[in-house]
Amino acid sequence: MRVLFIGFGNVGRRMARILTVERSKFPGMKPLDDLVTVGIVTRKSGALISPFGVDLEGALKEMESHGSFNEKNRGFCPLTAEEAVSSLDFDVLLELSTLSIENRGEPAISHVRKALERGRHVVSANKGPVAFAYRELSQLADLAGRRFLFETTVMDGAPVFNLYRSCLKGCVVRSVDGILNSTTNYILGRMEEGTEFAQAVREAQDIGVAEADPGHDIDGWDAAAKVAALANVLLGGDVNPYDVQREGIGAVDRRRVGEAIRSGRRLKLVCRAWRDEKGVQGKVGLEELPMDHPFSMIGGGGAVLRIHTDLMGPILVTQENPDLYDTAYGVLADLLSLKHG
Amino acid sequence: MRVLFIGFGNVGRRMARILTVERSKFPGMKPLDDLVTVGIVTRKSGALISPFGVDLEGALKEMESHGSFNEKNRGFCPLTAEEAVSSLDFDVLLELSTLSIENRGEPAISHVRKALERGRHVVSANKGPVAFAYRELSQLADLAGRRFLFETTVMDGAPVFNLYRSCLKGCVVRSVDGILNSTTNYILGRMEEGTEFAQAVREAQDIGVAEADPGHDIDGWDAAAKVAALANVLLGGDVNPYDVQREGIGAVDRRRVGEAIRSGRRLKLVCRAWRDEKGVQGKVGLEELPMDHPFSMIGGGGAVLRIHTDLMGPILVTQENPDLYDTAYGVLADLLSLKHG
Repeated sequence: MRVLFIGFGNVGRRMARILTVERSKFPGMKPLDDLVTVGIVTRKSGALISPFGVDLEGALKEMESHGSFNEKNRGFCPLTAEEAVSSLDFDVLLELSTLSIENRGEPAISHVRKALERGRHVVSANKGPVAFAYRELSQLADLAGRRFLFETTVMDGAPVFNLYRSCLKGCVVRSVDGILNSTTNYILGRMEEGTEFAQAVREAQDIGVAEADPGHDIDGWDAAAKVAALANVLLGGDVNPYDVQREGIGAVDRRRVGEAIRSGRRLKLVCRAWRDEKGVQGKVGLEELPMDHPFSMIGGGGAVLRIHTDLMGPILVTQENPDLYDTAYGVLADLLSLKHG
Repeated sequence: MRVLFIGFGNVGRRMARILTVERSKFPGMKPLDDLVTVGIVTRKSGALISPFGVDLEGALKEMESHGSFNEKNRGFCPLTAEEAVSSLDFDVLLELSTLSIENRGEPAISHVRKALERGRHVVSANKGPVAFAYRELSQLADLAGRRFLFETTVMDGAPVFNLYRSCLKGCVVRSVDGILNSTTNYILGRMEEGTEFAQAVREAQDIGVAEADPGHDIDGWDAAAKVAALANVLLGGDVNPYDVQREGIGAVDRRRVGEAIRSGRRLKLVCRAWRDEKGVQGKVGLEELPMDHPFSMIGGGGAVLRIHTDLMGPILVTQENPDLYDTAYGVLADLLSLKHG
């Protein structure tokens, strides 16, 4: 299986680590031993390409020690992502770049579209394509007889889209709700313990829960993108993050969090998607939940998704203490799905 | 798809209801519209057979109104389960009889074995075959190129075995734990509220959580069978319910439950399976859990399974308020898996 990496940030590097230096710790990754990396294209740190396979371990070490690829490296070349997706030969596009809400999921959507048009599979860790263009891209994939997969975009490798496809056959999903943004959940939790908002944000960055720019988390955009993805895939909607009613946690202070606690409740940023007479809709908003609500249990960087169907009582999937391994596994799980056909 | 029902108790009848009188409520069941019931064999209430298809709605009504099939019914015949499995022509055996711990899963295991030997698929709601004979039967299924499925045996239709097969590809499961028996969980919960043990048992029977004979629940046998199933399938063990360390709730009184509550804890019957230097092992036992433990949240008839893997932080699947639809869906989900190939 020949793969092209677009982006080589935290997720791509953790994947590379699992598949090379830490490979012996993970026997289940054996089916990916024949993976050939035909290219790694980054936005600012150069690109490495080779039809015979880039040395993934070497690329990882170079990026970790220097923060960019060395121009003297044999495979180094000034290819852009767009050029690579349009011209290189690969079986699977790994779209690992960062979501741009401002650019409505571009340029990732164009990369995915181009790869599918060229008859390639796509695995995206970027939420943009599934949140802004799911209907078009999934139809394109069907036409091409290829797969468009994105398990890691919601709750990392914890089963969400695979669960919907493989484990809820014959059920109709009526609505979903959950806590899906770990940065805001961590910050709200720390504020319950008396930490000021700004300090809680810094802590979230220090422990790696929050991005260097946590604005999209705090303003609810990350959560809205996840709601759009769930609305599109599980509920058959055609919703994008701008359609989702959205509230962030920027206006929350310790007083408000404390008042909730004193009344026996926890302030949580809750995600919802549902179908009603107006169609499929989504919402991200602050809610005060009783202590024994299943979402109140979700602390720190955890996440939970509850799925309401026609045939069963609600099913909840909860993720405890995820880290970059969980995110990388979500991408690897999709590659394994492609392997298994 | 031609199916043979062995057993037509609560699960079989709820399936029949979903597929006939309530069919219009569940659009996702469309792929099962071509299901042909070639036989329904019960232990005490007679059997109906027809190579052209038993009238499932008629059979349901007859059983619900009279508690047995009418001997004057055209398809009525005195066939035993063993005879039916050995002689009728069908594509899928639906093994819906009740688990017998005393008989170590028989006669259900023999039915499953015979069907697989005859090259038929098997869907079992009876825990016996997977808890007592998984290794043999799964190998037999592989040899025959047929499937041996049993999703509903643990947590009904909530994804457990399908999740393991489809959503944890490449992960190695290290251990599982959870609350898997709703009768004991309901009884312990009522005792926390001050109800005496015997009264709580009667209530559990009244609301349909407990069987008419709740002994196997109370003594931990039902939980031990589920632990064995999980140990065998998710951990590759060769464990049966007699190998599982087992404690029931028969010796628990209100005082003990109350003491736990006063120390800020909840008494729960916890299921565990794990792999260590001695191999794969299982345990069912009472544990006092802190209030903020994810298992402490599980009230009434709910259930939770936590899966620990090599690559991800723990994943929890929780089932809220299950009823007979959930159990029936577990069987229907397996039939849909067979349909989809």
